Order: sequence, then structure tokens, then C-alpha cells
Amino acid sequence: MTTEEVIGAIAAVLTTSSFLPQAIKVLRTRDTGAISLTMYVLFTAGVTLWGVYGLMTWQWSIIIANGITVVLAATILTMKVASVVSAGRNPRRATGN
Amino acid sequence: MTTEEVIGAIAAVLTTSSFLPQAIKVLRTRDTGAISLTMYVLFTAGVTLWGVYGLMTWQWSIIIANGITVVLAATILTMKVASVVSAGRNPRRATGN
Repeated sequence: MTTEEVIGAIAAVLTTSSFLPQAIKVLRTRDTGAISLTMYVLFTAGVTLWGVYGLMTWQWSIIIANGITVVLAATILTMKVASVVSAGRNPRRATGN
Repeated sequence: MTTEEVIGAIAAVLTTSSFLPQAIKVLRTRDTGAISLTMYVLFTAGVTLWGVYGLMTWQWSIIIANGITVVLAATILTMKVASVVSAGRNPRRATGN
């Protein structure tokens, strides 16, 4: 492995794994008040397309990294959407969402 | 441009731009309660390394996309750290951080 490949691999592990603590925090606290809905709509769509790109060009590292990230980002997005829907139904609970 | 290249370009625009609404939300509301500190430490380190990888392999698209993302992620990280430090100094204001 070249130095560039090692740096790229560490970068991929860091950016992919970073969404795990955020997903755990949101699942544990059920608090998504400060989370941007627009960010997770755009980001989940983006990593899904990165996964499609990986499948079309048959690059395993891209398929695996984005496959993991899609699951984590979609979890955070689902919790945010559930919170927004719940706040819409119960306006008194809408604080921070 | 091939279909794969078009999908990759759309994916890059989506994942890079997604951090803009989150940075704006955090700057506007000053609320970082639901934001994971660990996520933004790992993610900012990761995209910084992606930028280094882009510089070492001289790939403009990687340098530009990760350069923009580093600025946005570092903004969110800075606001979160400021909030945690502030909460540490004023424990009564610590709710949600």
C-alpha cells in the first residue's frame, strides 16, 4: 500500500464510522431538535447515489463504505422525520423540532 | 460524460452541499443539543484526510469537494465544542448538550 492509499483508507474509515455515534445518540435520546432535516435528505440521497456509482463501476470499497453510511444516515433521517411528523400532530411537543 | 460519471457528480454535489443547511441551522439557532460531538470530531478529521489524499494524488474534484466540506463540518464542530465548553462553565445551562 502506498502512503496515499493508507491516508485514503483511514479517511474512509473515519468518515464512514463518524455517523455511528450520531445514530446511537439519536436512537438513545430521541432528540433530533438540532438535526437538519434538509441535511439528512440530501446526504442520504447522495450516499445512495455513491452506492449506485460503486455498483455500476463495481468498486467494492465504495459499495461497502456507502452501504454502511446509507444505513446510518437513513436511521438518523427516519428518527428526524418521525419527530417532525409527531410534532405536527402534537404542536405542544414541537419545541426544538 | 458517462452515466457513471454523471451519477458520481450528482452524488458528490449532494453529499458536499448537505452540510450547508446543518451549518446554517446551527449558526442561526445556536442549538447543538442533538448533534454528536464524536461524529463531528471523526468526520472533520476524515474529510481533512480526504483533502490531503486529493492533494497528494492531485485530484481537483476531491480537493474542492472535501475543502468545502471541511469548512462546513469544522463550523458545526466549533459551535458544538463552544456549547460543551459553555455548558461546563455554566452547568445550569447544560440541558441537552
